[in-house]
Amino acid sequence: MTDKNKDRKCVIRFEPTGLKAEVPSGTILLNAVHKVGIYVSSICGGDGYCGKCKVIIDDGQFQSRPTTLLTPDEVQANMVLACQTRVLSDMTVTIPKWHSLETGQILTDSDASRFRELAAEAGATGFEFDPLIQKLFLEMTPPSVHDHTADHERLYLAIRQRIDAPIIQTGFRILQKLSGVLQAGDYKVTATVGRRGGTTELIEVEAGNHEKNFAVAVDLGTTTVVAHLIDLTSECTDAVDTEATYNSQINFGEDYIRRIIYAEEHNAFDQMQNRIVGDVNNLIVTLAVRQKIDLQDITAIVCAGNTAMIHFLLNLDPTRIRREPYIASAGFVPPIRAAEAGVQINKRGLLYCLPGVAAYIGSDIVAGVLTTGIYTKKGTCLFADIGTNGEVVLGNRDWLVCASSSAGPAFEGSGVRHGMRAAAGAIEKLTVHPDASIEFKTIGDTQPVGICGSGLLDTLAELFTGNIIDRTGRFKLDGDRRLTEGDEGRQFQLVPPGDGFQEIVITQADIDNLIRSKAGVFAAIRVLMDATQTKPEDLDAVYLAGGFGNFLNVKQAVTIGMLPDVPLEKIRFVGNTAIAGAKTVLLSRKALETAERIAKSMTYFDLMSHPTYMDEFIKASFLPHTDLSLFPTVKSVKR
Amino acid sequence: MTDKNKDRKCVIRFEPTGLKAEVPSGTILLNAVHKVGIYVSSICGGDGYCGKCKVIIDDGQFQSRPTTLLTPDEVQANMVLACQTRVLSDMTVTIPKWHSLETGQILTDSDASRFRELAAEAGATGFEFDPLIQKLFLEMTPPSVHDHTADHERLYLAIRQRIDAPIIQTGFRILQKLSGVLQAGDYKVTATVGRRGGTTELIEVEAGNHEKNFAVAVDLGTTTVVAHLIDLTSECTDAVDTEATYNSQINFGEDYIRRIIYAEEHNAFDQMQNRIVGDVNNLIVTLAVRQKIDLQDITAIVCAGNTAMIHFLLNLDPTRIRREPYIASAGFVPPIRAAEAGVQINKRGLLYCLPGVAAYIGSDIVAGVLTTGIYTKKGTCLFADIGTNGEVVLGNRDWLVCASSSAGPAFEGSGVRHGMRAAAGAIEKLTVHPDASIEFKTIGDTQPVGICGSGLLDTLAELFTGNIIDRTGRFKLDGDRRLTEGDEGRQFQLVPPGDGFQEIVITQADIDNLIRSKAGVFAAIRVLMDATQTKPEDLDAVYLAGGFGNFLNVKQAVTIGMLPDVPLEKIRFVGNTAIAGAKTVLLSRKALETAERIAKSMTYFDLMSHPTYMDEFIKASFLPHTDLSLFPTVKSVKR
Repeated sequence: MTDKNKDRKCVIRFEPTGLKAEVPSGTILLNAVHKVGIYVSSICGGDGYCGKCKVIIDDGQFQSRPTTLLTPDEVQANMVLACQTRVLSDMTVTIPKWHSLETGQILTDSDASRFRELAAEAGATGFEFDPLIQKLFLEMTPPSVHDHTADHERLYLAIRQRIDAPIIQTGFRILQKLSGVLQAGDYKVTATVGRRGGTTELIEVEAGNHEKNFAVAVDLGTTTVVAHLIDLTSECTDAVDTEATYNSQINFGEDYIRRIIYAEEHNAFDQMQNRIVGDVNNLIVTLAVRQKIDLQDITAIVCAGNTAMIHFLLNLDPTRIRREPYIASAGFVPPIRAAEAGVQINKRGLLYCLPGVAAYIGSDIVAGVLTTGIYTKKGTCLFADIGTNGEVVLGNRDWLVCASSSAGPAFEGSGVRHGMRAAAGAIEKLTVHPDASIEFKTIGDTQPVGICGSGLLDTLAELFTGNIIDRTGRFKLDGDRRLTEGDEGRQFQLVPPGDGFQEIVITQADIDNLIRSKAGVFAAIRVLMDATQTKPEDLDAVYLAGGFGNFLNVKQAVTIGMLPDVPLEKIRFVGNTAIAGAKTVLLSRKALETAERIAKSMTYFDLMSHPTYMDEFIKASFLPHTDLSLFPTVKSVKR
Repeated sequence: MTDKNKDRKCVIRFEPTGLKAEVPSGTILLNAVHKVGIYVSSICGGDGYCGKCKVIIDDGQFQSRPTTLLTPDEVQANMVLACQTRVLSDMTVTIPKWHSLETGQILTDSDASRFRELAAEAGATGFEFDPLIQKLFLEMTPPSVHDHTADHERLYLAIRQRIDAPIIQTGFRILQKLSGVLQAGDYKVTATVGRRGGTTELIEVEAGNHEKNFAVAVDLGTTTVVAHLIDLTSECTDAVDTEATYNSQINFGEDYIRRIIYAEEHNAFDQMQNRIVGDVNNLIVTLAVRQKIDLQDITAIVCAGNTAMIHFLLNLDPTRIRREPYIASAGFVPPIRAAEAGVQINKRGLLYCLPGVAAYIGSDIVAGVLTTGIYTKKGTCLFADIGTNGEVVLGNRDWLVCASSSAGPAFEGSGVRHGMRAAAGAIEKLTVHPDASIEFKTIGDTQPVGICGSGLLDTLAELFTGNIIDRTGRFKLDGDRRLTEGDEGRQFQLVPPGDGFQEIVITQADIDNLIRSKAGVFAAIRVLMDATQTKPEDLDAVYLAGGFGNFLNVKQAVTIGMLPDVPLEKIRFVGNTAIAGAKTVLLSRKALETAERIAKSMTYFDLMSHPTYMDEFIKASFLPHTDLSLFPTVKSVKR
């Protein structure tokens, strides 16, 4: 590359969208992809070791670093890793379908209804209807020579006749305009009041009656961001509408630790915030447009998410989440004006974050405890949220302990050759028949594209019970023609290539990743149970939440040794408890106070420094476990 | 005036300062005076009827409206009313000395020490030392792998170990920088916390120890603005330094009703705010420079003042203070960030206003009740604050009633021919000897320039007891050569003209004004005493505060029938209780809460609509009163 080339601008046309990027010669292709906002899978954040960011160069000059992550066939087809390729001329680049497939709508209609069911259940936990933000239509008696009460105090009196608000706070701008509004409305005004940790803020005051009042509950996932639109004037906890999108930070790494590193190395904290705030705003605008709601009528947003994601959203310093002493800047984030964080709702509307416990136990987990009601139960319960990390909570109404294992995103489809998200074409269900033949079902019953979380769980369990892998996860069917040697060692063909789709395989590395994930979760469970002297038979209930959500076969989770071997009727899916918790809080101040009490009462176990965790992890790195006596029912299913 | 002239610029040079103003031809001279910021007396705000804004035209062309308010001698000396004169060319204008004399330092050293004594007394009311703003140097244990508490919660814990703060609030910007500051200071930081109505705000957090913490207590008077600089790190209630200035709104009218009218007619609410905020800032800067204090180390300002003045300061709508139903926009003003109102202290410092009761009973009166401790007394007490209005409070620990009479500013020297403020040259003491000769004393023992409040009180009482005026205030000494006919009727020469000073007279109109003022106050007292069935002998104490302050002879206040005829030892001067109250509150959160309780418990009597007030006023318009049995001791002093 000459100096002359360096200054040259290159125009890249991306197919099939036709989007164009103009970049200086020498630009890394992945950065050009980011520039136009196209989604391309990237687990490692551009370090060249995950091999996910494959794109096809149709024409143009480029320079690619050698990599072992492309097969000879792929190289033949002009495929490159975008993160290892420099642009040297005008180019045309095709983004393979599988990238865009993953960005499709993650929530099908049945997902949405699942969330509705969950919300109804949360509403049944008995919190009184007392939304965080209320619009009160106040019809006051105007002042007279017999009633000299000042406007400000008159309004406070009227508010206190309607709601319990011992401490009311009013910003200066509202105070200044208040008299004018009261007179304009002939003392019939709408006061928008918001709850802020023991106080009530007079957020807005308008002449006349303005009833419409909406809020948004948001699950800030590392992978997906889900938003539910709620009507705050109704006690009904059903969402008016729901929407979800991929977390667009994903271009900077699939797990949040990698994103923190990226942000540090590129001083990209603002960029990280802009991405997640942009995602949230897109969801809000989509919901508002679809429901024909004025953004000014959305007065609150409640967010639940892991600690890193909350830090990114508010641009708090997240760097010590990944470094000793592994702490958060803030676990209990006070309500702020949403506009201060760039969130586009009513310009004086409030943004609430559910409280978190520690760097690795975020507000999404507190939401889970709130939603499942563990903190009210006499019997001991287990709650496990399996995502990029595997967070585990054990406890009852008297005590709560929690821990987080760095499970890795294997069950979210990352770090697995044909892993993908729960989108159309994903294998969500897989069975190995006694004759070793394989049956599968894809989401949308379309041609198979990859395997999503529940499919991976099935795969691991069925390969094990079907005697295709042994207890250590090694392939045992030496004679099977489906077992071949690939670039990453041995791999097993689950689906042969067909008309218009490639073969789907699972590699030894994939299986090792999956076992590591489940071992991490189970070791965390063991540490907490040991510390509290809880035996499996003491468990009244096991609640499972997480990435696979709906599609998970709980029996398989026991089969592979991820969950303790308790009677299946004790295990329950609880779906997206983060959003259910956010919604519960939005509709009840008491629920928010309860979440704060829960977060304070949860004792955090740091597994990294725990003396027995590593040992437990190693013992759990078998199928189902080194100690088979822990899994009596699994022994019986083993053929 | 031709169109050509209209566009011409005229340069006016003002003597003796030499300041210059460039204004378009046709500009009202008083506006040009305002433009350069020179003080010229003006009671009516430029309507041409008070006759105070006399200036001398040395040369140049002008056009003056005819007026009866200038004597032929004054016209001969090229004197004009600045508000009735248009500038038509370059000019030289001399501002007579008496204007600038009034703007001199109102507080002599003895005044300052008087305030110190008062503050000490307030400190003795038993409020615990608990300043509204505190700087806490917190030495925290840094986080470790054994202590995962987040920075935000770690700081809250440390704050709560030091002070009682159940609800702490933190703004978004502080939250964002908090982790950086904690790390920079190795978890040794200074937290500045402020009390905001039941909550505690984390105002600032800085690495290391920053002890300096000052605040300013301000008495926002209609006429004068007084500021005391307080060291918040010390329990000592003495002011570090004090400063006072004239309220520069005075150019728009001497009483606040006239200023509200001016602001409405000229849409000059912003200008009114700028003036008063400018005055406050000048005081603060003067104190800070003199004491070598960084403005950033002044973290709070507490203001007491009448309701109109508080509204002007914050630019709240004051218009209904003067119009039915005579209400305030806000009586209990929540703390705001001082910078929001333009007050130049620490940019995140807080501005507090003491609570007021009604449009005509402001926070200065609540401060008086707090300072005198009436609200704690078993016996019934009377508190009267004589200024532009005469506010009266009657009560004890069980009940408090209050009223405001529009006494007029006569005892502040306004509306009186030779009335002036308590500045150098003012007659502050006057005696009529049995031979009808007059002895007087001026402030600073200089040549007499006019008569201030205490001198006016003496004059009225001594003319009465000296048989120069009768019980109706009419002159009786027909043969006295000192009694002449002036432009406003009869006038009495108190001081003959001397070398370098003009004669000092008191006119029949002056005496009528003074009697109206005292009658208003006494009628208010009577209404409250009647309503509560309080007899003069039931009064345990009478507290007097107000414009004449220090110089007042309480005996004379009884002689003229302004205060009820109680034993003199029961009557006490309490000086500037507004500033004493502001200081007390600044140093004790409990005192602010008490002030709020006091304001809430005070029952306001609207005299305008009261059935007996007019009657009482007419009966009190005699010296000392129509009903002499109310003033047994006065009968006996009458010669």
